[in-house]
Amino acid sequence: MGEQPIDRQIKQHADALNAALDRMMNERRGQVPQRLWEAMQYSLLAGGKRVRPALMLQCLRACGSDADIMPAAMSIECMHTYSLIHDDLPSMDNDDLRRGMPTCHKRFDEATAILAADALQALSFELLAMQQADAAIRIRLIRLLAAAAGDSGMVGGQAMDMQADAAGVSGLPEVERIHAMKTGALLRYSCEAGARLAGASDVAVAACCRFGEAVGLLFQITDDILDATASSEALGKSAGKDAAQGKATYVSLLGLAGARAKAGATHRAALEAAGLLGEDGKSLQAFATYIMERGQ
Amino acid sequence: MGEQPIDRQIKQHADALNAALDRMMNERRGQVPQRLWEAMQYSLLAGGKRVRPALMLQCLRACGSDADIMPAAMSIECMHTYSLIHDDLPSMDNDDLRRGMPTCHKRFDEATAILAADALQALSFELLAMQQADAAIRIRLIRLLAAAAGDSGMVGGQAMDMQADAAGVSGLPEVERIHAMKTGALLRYSCEAGARLAGASDVAVAACCRFGEAVGLLFQITDDILDATASSEALGKSAGKDAAQGKATYVSLLGLAGARAKAGATHRAALEAAGLLGEDGKSLQAFATYIMERGQ
Repeated sequence: MGEQPIDRQIKQHADALNAALDRMMNERRGQVPQRLWEAMQYSLLAGGKRVRPALMLQCLRACGSDADIMPAAMSIECMHTYSLIHDDLPSMDNDDLRRGMPTCHKRFDEATAILAADALQALSFELLAMQQADAAIRIRLIRLLAAAAGDSGMVGGQAMDMQADAAGVSGLPEVERIHAMKTGALLRYSCEAGARLAGASDVAVAACCRFGEAVGLLFQITDDILDATASSEALGKSAGKDAAQGKATYVSLLGLAGARAKAGATHRAALEAAGLLGEDGKSLQAFATYIMERGQ
Repeated sequence: MGEQPIDRQIKQHADALNAALDRMMNERRGQVPQRLWEAMQYSLLAGGKRVRPALMLQCLRACGSDADIMPAAMSIECMHTYSLIHDDLPSMDNDDLRRGMPTCHKRFDEATAILAADALQALSFELLAMQQADAAIRIRLIRLLAAAAGDSGMVGGQAMDMQADAAGVSGLPEVERIHAMKTGALLRYSCEAGARLAGASDVAVAACCRFGEAVGLLFQITDDILDATASSEALGKSAGKDAAQGKATYVSLLGLAGARAKAGATHRAALEAAGLLGEDGKSLQAFATYIMERGQ
């Protein structure tokens, strides 16, 4: 499988993950109130590239393991999905569309959406606790996941993002801090978790963390570039929304050429971090290039 | 301390817990966006009897341990507080007051309230993972907590409660199922966690679970009785709200006398479960009687 192009590998990871999520949700069906279950299922299986589980799996393999980490991979996707549902709510980003489909609160209702996401957060920790691994490693990952998802990570970043939007345009350092918390922390965690589940050395874990940070930043820059250049149809969500809302992005702060230059430098940082893993890091380098090319 | 009356013991547990929560929040202050931090602090330290941590501690002691379980006690209170914040939201129970103070979304805003609660859920798991105990025990507790809090527990119960309210009055079996999920699961977990942290035998763990189930039910019945009989001032929230909303409660389904009879029977079941622990179960019996007398 290491021989296949990265986009095919990502597609295969996503297919396997979707099948596992679907099996898990079907097993839960009888124990969960019907409408709540439907809302969880709707958002969890709404598609997406499943970048976080793919990063986790690629880092696991780059650290020399082929262990089954499906529970940990499902866990990170539950956490990500919960955050999307809450971010879309009327009192937050007030989005009607997500991946070309009505958002959870549009398809169901606000209360159901809030609760479905709350349940997905709990499920994320439950799945991680069920991952086959030493209990001490699982405890460590649970602490890392909680920190990445909580008040000094993803949730904190969303709170800062909303404050920044309300206060008007902010500068590059603040935008970088917001993204590092809001999206970066969970992407970094995905890479670190893959390495730790492989039982990697401290040096290899550190390399995966650095890779995760660079890829997280690259992901955000290319997202901003896509928002400024792609059509809504291609994105599956409203394009040009950032500019329309006067939101501070890498494009608004650096211009399109500047944002592309920054993407290039960040891409090189990701290649370098993956290079620390030697030959095994090649698939991570391909992954970084795949993210990079989204924004071209 | 076992010699003191139960209400004094509960007060002492609450004081120690509040001090520990306050210390923890102050340590986090610099790492969390200011407004998010304020909302978390506001709701987490808004008072309350801290029944869940008290139950956990009493079960720990009834199982013969005096270990320091403050992280696990703080964890359960973070989980409970997050659920109160979300339950109070306009799209859910739409409450303006909680413990005589403006609810979180009233004092701050809806987005901040949603995010503060989200962060408290993550913090709950983080604290539990930090509890001093064998990693295998911690993993077990994390799975139990996630199940008690998630789609087949607390969140599922809230979803069912809202569906039942919308569909009109429902019967006793449904009301019991809703309460067992919405409030019972977390109270039962608190008791089981105390026993497991004490390294109790399977028999003692099972006794604490049965005690937790009975006390959870007793708690709900006395809550319904109080709503029907006490003043808003005494409750610190709007009294008579259940009847005004045509909500199915133990009082509406069984009448006041019937609800009191059921409380009596449930109280006896709690005494019996605690009795399985012998002399050590006496403080649990006092606890059950304390809950019982709320509704007199």
